[in-house]
Amino acid sequence: MGGDNAPAEIVAGAVQAVRERGVPVVLVGQPRVLQQALAAHDAGAEIPIVRAEEALAMDEGALASLRRPKSSIAVACHLVRRGDAAAVVSAGSTAGAVTTGRLRLRAQQGVLRPAIAVTLPTRPRPTVLLDAGATADAKPEMLVQFAHLGIAYAEVGLGIAQPRVGLLTIGSEAEKGNKVAKRAHELIAAAPGIDFAGNVEGHDLLTGKVDVVVSDGFTGNVALKTLEGTVRYTFGQFREAIGESPLARLGGLLQRGRLRELADRLDPEAYGGAVLLGLTGTLVIAHGSSHARGIAAACDLAARLSAQGIVARIGDRIAAAPKSHRLW
Amino acid sequence: MGGDNAPAEIVAGAVQAVRERGVPVVLVGQPRVLQQALAAHDAGAEIPIVRAEEALAMDEGALASLRRPKSSIAVACHLVRRGDAAAVVSAGSTAGAVTTGRLRLRAQQGVLRPAIAVTLPTRPRPTVLLDAGATADAKPEMLVQFAHLGIAYAEVGLGIAQPRVGLLTIGSEAEKGNKVAKRAHELIAAAPGIDFAGNVEGHDLLTGKVDVVVSDGFTGNVALKTLEGTVRYTFGQFREAIGESPLARLGGLLQRGRLRELADRLDPEAYGGAVLLGLTGTLVIAHGSSHARGIAAACDLAARLSAQGIVARIGDRIAAAPKSHRLW
Repeated sequence: MGGDNAPAEIVAGAVQAVRERGVPVVLVGQPRVLQQALAAHDAGAEIPIVRAEEALAMDEGALASLRRPKSSIAVACHLVRRGDAAAVVSAGSTAGAVTTGRLRLRAQQGVLRPAIAVTLPTRPRPTVLLDAGATADAKPEMLVQFAHLGIAYAEVGLGIAQPRVGLLTIGSEAEKGNKVAKRAHELIAAAPGIDFAGNVEGHDLLTGKVDVVVSDGFTGNVALKTLEGTVRYTFGQFREAIGESPLARLGGLLQRGRLRELADRLDPEAYGGAVLLGLTGTLVIAHGSSHARGIAAACDLAARLSAQGIVARIGDRIAAAPKSHRLW
Repeated sequence: MGGDNAPAEIVAGAVQAVRERGVPVVLVGQPRVLQQALAAHDAGAEIPIVRAEEALAMDEGALASLRRPKSSIAVACHLVRRGDAAAVVSAGSTAGAVTTGRLRLRAQQGVLRPAIAVTLPTRPRPTVLLDAGATADAKPEMLVQFAHLGIAYAEVGLGIAQPRVGLLTIGSEAEKGNKVAKRAHELIAAAPGIDFAGNVEGHDLLTGKVDVVVSDGFTGNVALKTLEGTVRYTFGQFREAIGESPLARLGGLLQRGRLRELADRLDPEAYGGAVLLGLTGTLVIAHGSSHARGIAAACDLAARLSAQGIVARIGDRIAAAPKSHRLW
């Protein structure tokens, strides 16, 4: 029920996931509304519906999820908790999804805080950035765990062997950063089981220098949105530059195919969404503006992560990590 | 003496500033080296040299500036302090320039911490982002002062009347952010003399939504470098897309002029560099990779800020601001 284009595009994406990717989907929400949307695809018999009469509005934010135990996201999390579904996909409010996920799916044993992981379109393989906004005031000990969550995601979700980890800060030397980053650097450098490449900076995010970039949720969210906004801005400027003179416009026509490919690759929808890691179940948060294609990709990602045991992999890493003596 | 292309490009930039922009320049550094570089432009008689035998290396960082009272940046700051120069331009280590500036030029009365201001290439007018890295662990009260510094810079340096201020955080609602940002939001909203537009996010940096974006130095530095890295990455991807097929390459040739213009506008060198605000003198920090054009633009900016009284303007704003009762 959540997302700027709900329910039509969400349902269309679910139908795509079932028909084109073979992912079995259950829709959670208002049956009448969903049945109608399914009917448009003649898919009423293919996709079961679980009733949830309420829904979190996009602007309701974190607190509303506490007040609405019958919201579609809360009911969907409950299905996972009961074992009736393997993972949740939502295009609704990120804050709502994070809060509901934490409340209904709970943190995995030993995990201090969950983190949102996103993949950046680097080549030849994507880069994982986390936390992209679940925990705004993170402690250094949480950043060490984020490294473990990110490694598990890179291995299980992206098939990257021995992922290298970087810490997002403001200079390459160990002592560069704010207090949280400096202490996190010490802890990650000393942690067994983490292939730590040291500090990375904002301009390293798209160079593929490391496989996993660790950050507190505030900085990670600002960096991710800056990156997305800058891609959008630069594309707009290109389009303007191409469109301005007749000669240039002709050139633009000749390139249109290539540019569309590039735009597609840099489109956040193509990545399949962000993943909330560290809970007892997998929760994929699709972009609020997702269309069918983005939803289908998110369903595919959720199915893959669940089938390949991301929760167990994280559990193993956290269990193997030495416990911090002093937390906060 | 500082910068990746020192001394040749720095001296060439100084010559450009004198000859093309009418900015009187004094060079500070090793006389023999500088005389040689000036001779290449036949400019030995136009630009005086002040001797400084030492220089901070690019990788020496903050502490070295304490150990080297005779470095070129320290001597240059001393010239300003004595009134023999109006402002300093450096392409050397940012950390070294900030530390030396704070030590030799001191903070203006009432200013808690200096901030680095940069201008982003929005249209029709640029956007000021600060702090871009001077103070990694900023308190909320410092962010309120950064708003005043940014307003003064937008007015004096960029000619923007009644600049609107935004706070860089992770959601548009007042309660979105980490603890520092949330408290800063309350303080800035209550501060007289600040036209506060509320929170802005990473994707707002290039939209020109506000004139001044306030941030702690850690987040601001990550955002700035992410933005620069993403522009570079997207350009590279475009170039690749354009170069791949013969037809597309023909298109690229037709557009080359437009794209070069765009690349120029998005090039950090074109902005003239970052400015360290809040000290008793003006210090412009050019990009370490600056060539002559960037250095000339930085000299121009330094001359303009000094001539138009940026220090006095900041002093007036800070003096007029109500004092915080509880600092730390």
